[in-house]
Amino acid sequence: MLESGLLRRGAIQLIMGGTSNLLDILDCQDTVGFTGSAATALTLRSSPNILKNGVRFTAEQDSLNGSLLGPDVVPGTAEFDLFVTEVHREMTTKAGQKCTAIRRIMVPEAYMETVQIALKERLLATKIGHPALAATEMGALVSLGQRLDVRAQARLIAKECDIIFGDEGSCHVEGADAEAGAFLSPILFCCLDPDQAVSVHEVEAFGPVATLMPYRNIDHGIALLNRGGGSLVASVITHDPAVARQVVLGAGSFHGRLYFNDRVSQAESTGHGSPLPHMVHGGPGRAGGSEELGGLRGVKHYMQQSAVQGSPDMLTAITGAWIKGATELTAASHPFTRDFYQLKIGETIHTAGREVSLKDIEHFAEFTGDRFYAHMDAEAAKANPFFPDRVAHGYLLLSFAAGLFVEPNPGPVLANTGLNTLSFQKPVVVGDCIKVQLTVKRKTRRTEEYGEVRWAVVLRNQNLDQVAEYELLTMNSYGETKVP
Amino acid sequence: MLESGLLRRGAIQLIMGGTSNLLDILDCQDTVGFTGSAATALTLRSSPNILKNGVRFTAEQDSLNGSLLGPDVVPGTAEFDLFVTEVHREMTTKAGQKCTAIRRIMVPEAYMETVQIALKERLLATKIGHPALAATEMGALVSLGQRLDVRAQARLIAKECDIIFGDEGSCHVEGADAEAGAFLSPILFCCLDPDQAVSVHEVEAFGPVATLMPYRNIDHGIALLNRGGGSLVASVITHDPAVARQVVLGAGSFHGRLYFNDRVSQAESTGHGSPLPHMVHGGPGRAGGSEELGGLRGVKHYMQQSAVQGSPDMLTAITGAWIKGATELTAASHPFTRDFYQLKIGETIHTAGREVSLKDIEHFAEFTGDRFYAHMDAEAAKANPFFPDRVAHGYLLLSFAAGLFVEPNPGPVLANTGLNTLSFQKPVVVGDCIKVQLTVKRKTRRTEEYGEVRWAVVLRNQNLDQVAEYELLTMNSYGETKVP
Repeated sequence: MLESGLLRRGAIQLIMGGTSNLLDILDCQDTVGFTGSAATALTLRSSPNILKNGVRFTAEQDSLNGSLLGPDVVPGTAEFDLFVTEVHREMTTKAGQKCTAIRRIMVPEAYMETVQIALKERLLATKIGHPALAATEMGALVSLGQRLDVRAQARLIAKECDIIFGDEGSCHVEGADAEAGAFLSPILFCCLDPDQAVSVHEVEAFGPVATLMPYRNIDHGIALLNRGGGSLVASVITHDPAVARQVVLGAGSFHGRLYFNDRVSQAESTGHGSPLPHMVHGGPGRAGGSEELGGLRGVKHYMQQSAVQGSPDMLTAITGAWIKGATELTAASHPFTRDFYQLKIGETIHTAGREVSLKDIEHFAEFTGDRFYAHMDAEAAKANPFFPDRVAHGYLLLSFAAGLFVEPNPGPVLANTGLNTLSFQKPVVVGDCIKVQLTVKRKTRRTEEYGEVRWAVVLRNQNLDQVAEYELLTMNSYGETKVP
Repeated sequence: MLESGLLRRGAIQLIMGGTSNLLDILDCQDTVGFTGSAATALTLRSSPNILKNGVRFTAEQDSLNGSLLGPDVVPGTAEFDLFVTEVHREMTTKAGQKCTAIRRIMVPEAYMETVQIALKERLLATKIGHPALAATEMGALVSLGQRLDVRAQARLIAKECDIIFGDEGSCHVEGADAEAGAFLSPILFCCLDPDQAVSVHEVEAFGPVATLMPYRNIDHGIALLNRGGGSLVASVITHDPAVARQVVLGAGSFHGRLYFNDRVSQAESTGHGSPLPHMVHGGPGRAGGSEELGGLRGVKHYMQQSAVQGSPDMLTAITGAWIKGATELTAASHPFTRDFYQLKIGETIHTAGREVSLKDIEHFAEFTGDRFYAHMDAEAAKANPFFPDRVAHGYLLLSFAAGLFVEPNPGPVLANTGLNTLSFQKPVVVGDCIKVQLTVKRKTRRTEEYGEVRWAVVLRNQNLDQVAEYELLTMNSYGETKVP
């Protein structure tokens, strides 16, 4: 990262060890982003300096994430196998020491036994051992202390559940000492009355520990998912879009991410436990009440926003982009003849006018094949709530506008690459005369040879009524001046 | 608000009095938005339940807002008078009991005396009195307790400053008893060494109290503005865009809003103290570290966001908008013949093809006047980094596309109102054959008679390469079915 040259010296620092009074000297220009347990997050968030000085604090806490087998899924289908695979993977990967690991497994009452058998079979086949052995599928916890903690939490959960797989006290380990190393067998609990239970929804054993529980119908399943009091991710394996929609509406506000998977998406899907950079990561309540990642949003969490108020000219000077109402500049030559760096923000031309005739409209219809009734049939056009009479095609106006502002000779404009937010604002009828205002709005370097110019384009009729407006995009050469 | 019918019963409640254990029973589905003092905000933010349960908490705290007279402004100009007017208004409106009131006044060293004289003159002329009197310009503070508090804070500030106007102990009041009512004279301090001073930047007297201080140059002025440790708003009266830009870059991250005003914007400007619904309100650090308002963002502060992962078909079912890759539906008739509610999301047509000839390109150039070299001159086109040869006009493609997908007869489609995010992705040369894919992407009710349909449009050539893509907007009649 440092060698990329993109980051300033000191921007990334890795501290091994204590951070001394770091939290006490942060101020409103700092952000603390924490990943870890709810208990540690609470301690950090409660620091007097963080509370007092408006230090931004985001926490991504391991939470009681749930996975639900859709009510539509029956044993023997791709979805059923997928569910068992995902749950097993989340329990055993990193020995279940993952903030997104599945802690609560919701299954339709009718399939509790089938799921139980399938999961036990997978867990039984999981090879626990020394990480240097090729066959090892699951290693040790991070420390003996951590194992003590997981065992203690598991005992709390056990008060409300039956153990259906595993034993916190014994574990078969290949190539290492099960007691000297922090090995722990996966433990699968079963909670038959998840409505009455409390610990299964609140206590997190941060290891290979999860609890299976039955649900009666999708509403009940959603209620159980939400009993976690906020989680990083909830997953639902279903092939029924109606189920997916219902879960989003019922559970969306309790989970940072809702993950749906089925036979269609399974080949491309990244798994319940994988936050993706372009998706929000973090979740409400128990998960920390914060947000990380989320595409461009992810950068903005480390930026600040300030509203800026001023005249259009002030805002144009501040932002470097032309704001409606700012002064129009006049240049000596047509903007299409001027290199990227010669063009000034605000440079504007007003074109000559072009009258639209009935012949133009009929000819355009004939040439393009667009004989939409509003252009061709006066009676039909008048019956329409938008038009007073036959009107010019929108694309005819765009085309005429280009004919009015384009400078034809080879020059710095390389291509029209697109346009944005085109709106047709007033009908143009026979006899109307169109003029174009074209203003340099924003310039952005794109390559070593050329950059993008965004132009504000406004079409007006003979009464100066605005008839259309859009943002035009072109690529423009830097010409001789490769640097500004 | 209730009578509008837009809000559910119970959505707005006004509680006069204590809120009992309200803060202790909030959870991750709640937001606390607080406006008031930094001290009260700290108490609320430190509630164990708010800290533990991820209850969202935003505070908009009164802060040490500053106003700066630009280094370009000289006495006798519109900007100079504007500055004096704004400062005076912020000191005396609501007797200075405003979260956004100006507490710190930064003036170029050379004009300290002139500003002092002008401000004293305005303050002296300010009529303090009974609110029922028509002549009264400034009334009392909210309570006698508040006056005690303001006096105490003012005494702290006084340790670092000279009083140049007003007296905390005496006040001329018309029509009321100055002592029995919580009247307080405006107090203007002067701090000649604002770099060494601490209280003037930290202690807020929440009344008609402000401190004047000199700055040496704009960097010094910016540093003083930022000494408030985060504020709701900083204002700068300047007619120099370069000053404005420098302040934004130097002070933006310390203030929720930066307000610039000059002779151009003064007639429209709402004043230093007025947060506007479409601008962010709130500020970093001392101002609470939160955000309110800000246009649509303002609504989102009270909503939650959840990332949703699934196949395109799942996402389409969940969102009600067609997602690229989702199943295309085929209807019995052309979508332009089907009413708003008959159209189904995902309904798609693939048109016949149309070959683009050299004659088409030349004719279009002739007809529209757009003779840009890339369409007309093979050598010039080839010299351009984007084109292999003479290419079709982008607007010719749009026009031919409409000719291919438009159904001409009167029907539910009322008008093409615009398009979004058009990108031309591959050049189209003579002999290429264009086909269009048109898909119903999203439907939105707009009036009682018609709604907006957004269409995903993709143009491909004979090799199925995508050559252009955009979102087309039309207004479509509900037809007989006025409700879905």
